[in-house]
Amino acid sequence: MKARHRTMEWVGDERGHLRLLDQTRLPTEVVYRDIRSVEDLWHAIKQLQVRGAPAIGVAAAYGMVLAAQHDPSPAALEKARNYLATARPTAVNLFWALDRMSRVPPNAADLLAEAHAIYHEDVRTCLAIGRHGAALLKDGMGVLTHCNAGALATADYGTALAVIFIAAEQGKRLHVYADETRPLLQGARLTAWELRERGIPSTLICDGMAGQVMKEGRIQTIVVGADRIAANGDTANKIGTYGVAVLAKHHHIPVYVAAPASTFDLTLADGSGIPIEQRDAREITHGFGRQTAPDGMAVYNPAFDVTPASLLSGIITEWGLIAPVNQSNVERVLRSRQQVV
Amino acid sequence: MKARHRTMEWVGDERGHLRLLDQTRLPTEVVYRDIRSVEDLWHAIKQLQVRGAPAIGVAAAYGMVLAAQHDPSPAALEKARNYLATARPTAVNLFWALDRMSRVPPNAADLLAEAHAIYHEDVRTCLAIGRHGAALLKDGMGVLTHCNAGALATADYGTALAVIFIAAEQGKRLHVYADETRPLLQGARLTAWELRERGIPSTLICDGMAGQVMKEGRIQTIVVGADRIAANGDTANKIGTYGVAVLAKHHHIPVYVAAPASTFDLTLADGSGIPIEQRDAREITHGFGRQTAPDGMAVYNPAFDVTPASLLSGIITEWGLIAPVNQSNVERVLRSRQQVV
Repeated sequence: MKARHRTMEWVGDERGHLRLLDQTRLPTEVVYRDIRSVEDLWHAIKQLQVRGAPAIGVAAAYGMVLAAQHDPSPAALEKARNYLATARPTAVNLFWALDRMSRVPPNAADLLAEAHAIYHEDVRTCLAIGRHGAALLKDGMGVLTHCNAGALATADYGTALAVIFIAAEQGKRLHVYADETRPLLQGARLTAWELRERGIPSTLICDGMAGQVMKEGRIQTIVVGADRIAANGDTANKIGTYGVAVLAKHHHIPVYVAAPASTFDLTLADGSGIPIEQRDAREITHGFGRQTAPDGMAVYNPAFDVTPASLLSGIITEWGLIAPVNQSNVERVLRSRQQVV
Repeated sequence: MKARHRTMEWVGDERGHLRLLDQTRLPTEVVYRDIRSVEDLWHAIKQLQVRGAPAIGVAAAYGMVLAAQHDPSPAALEKARNYLATARPTAVNLFWALDRMSRVPPNAADLLAEAHAIYHEDVRTCLAIGRHGAALLKDGMGVLTHCNAGALATADYGTALAVIFIAAEQGKRLHVYADETRPLLQGARLTAWELRERGIPSTLICDGMAGQVMKEGRIQTIVVGADRIAANGDTANKIGTYGVAVLAKHHHIPVYVAAPASTFDLTLADGSGIPIEQRDAREITHGFGRQTAPDGMAVYNPAFDVTPASLLSGIITEWGLIAPVNQSNVERVLRSRQQVV
């Protein structure tokens, strides 16, 4: 189950630095980038060299160590937190991790210990999500996923893909269909790469093929990740997730979201308040080193959409399954977490 | 309304040749290719230098003139017909045009006259489809289309886009959303180019964004083309059309197919008998001059899907609107055509 490549690792002691697997170079090149400043990390997050809501949270935690190396004053650290928080507006784990780091004594050694704790908690969280979710998958199932909610989106193992990896470890024969996930092809570049690395039988499709694949009876369950979940279970995830959920409803296929508790934003009653990051038109018009749309063409490029709780069969957290998805079940499962902490 | 560039034209008399706008080079380059043999045409169709069911039919008609230039014997012409028929298996207009050419005296002059007749009929057909369909569009509407069913997919004007072009000519202010249409991006490369050329306000989106755009209330009507329509109205069109139709149903948005009568295949009771062309995996894994999936990744790449008649609000033909879409209404409208012919 050990990932062949680590999404990120801290190199050295509190005077060390963060090493990231540059996900923009996958699947053809495995390149690591050494990050030695908050500014470098901000750009790495913005350019999606590291992406996935849990991974962004962990990386931001390490980023605060880099900030403290430079200037550990409370004012400087607050400035660094505010700066990192602007890198991606939708992923709430980013704010969660920065908030947690703000409660640590402002020195690099203590901050590093807390960042390591967040890292290792994320690994354990992913394994717990995988175990809870694996119980939902049966031998012989076809499973569709969208974007990348794998080891690359977390410290290790992933969320949606952890569910698949653990089920496969349990001996269940699965076939995974991966949406390529335009515009940035995280499904084709990252999910397909992880599935190949772990030897899980899988097929890559274009996003527009998901409906046809469902119609042909190839899909029995859908598992995706999340970037932010409101108090009622409405879930922001990579653009296209909402469409997949509507198609699944039409074909009577269950849709599960797999995400850590840190993905919930209980300050939002429902998904209408989740800010949706709009990204550069060139991701669509010039995505692959070649111009594929006419000059001057207007583009709409929301990075995420919100799937209403009513389209979800359940949300798989490290504390168990939230199903049916509604505010009282969300509260009940998250309250069990409060009690343990 | 005149297209700025012609999809194809015959150059010279019966000793002449076919000139095609190479659609694989759009939107960044306008390059014409001179086609002087049946083999050249077969490859041009296979490689999608000319594509779109009506345009393929017209091009194949001209191809029979090229065949007769080389060898006008009945055996050679039959061989040429059978060969051209293998270029794309789904578009029924190809077989329709070749069948019609088989009833013409086997000499280049008569064949050219018939090919010209098919060409000009296609132009008139597209205009008639545009007029019938424009009545369905209201001022201020947002209209979604998938793939390219424009002037580039026909002799001129298009089918789905003719509906939009004529409505715009009538002074209706429309905003068109074009799905980019992976894997080959006919929406981004061709539809966006046609909309820009004609000054129609429009926005390009990735296929996975269609659901979100519908949810935001931006779309009031969907118009797409067709590659083959069964006797009951089940419609094969570019992969992704089925998914768009399911999303439209969920959002209570009407879906219209715009297609000439030659697109109907009345030998098929329903869509289950329509052959679906499977295309090269590299269209998905290496589509943009760059490898975007890991080595050895399995791919599913059907070029078309079949949208059941039950998801369609109507089929717009040159003979009027078929609505609701069912076998008796299909027969009634196509019978009116028989009577006129």
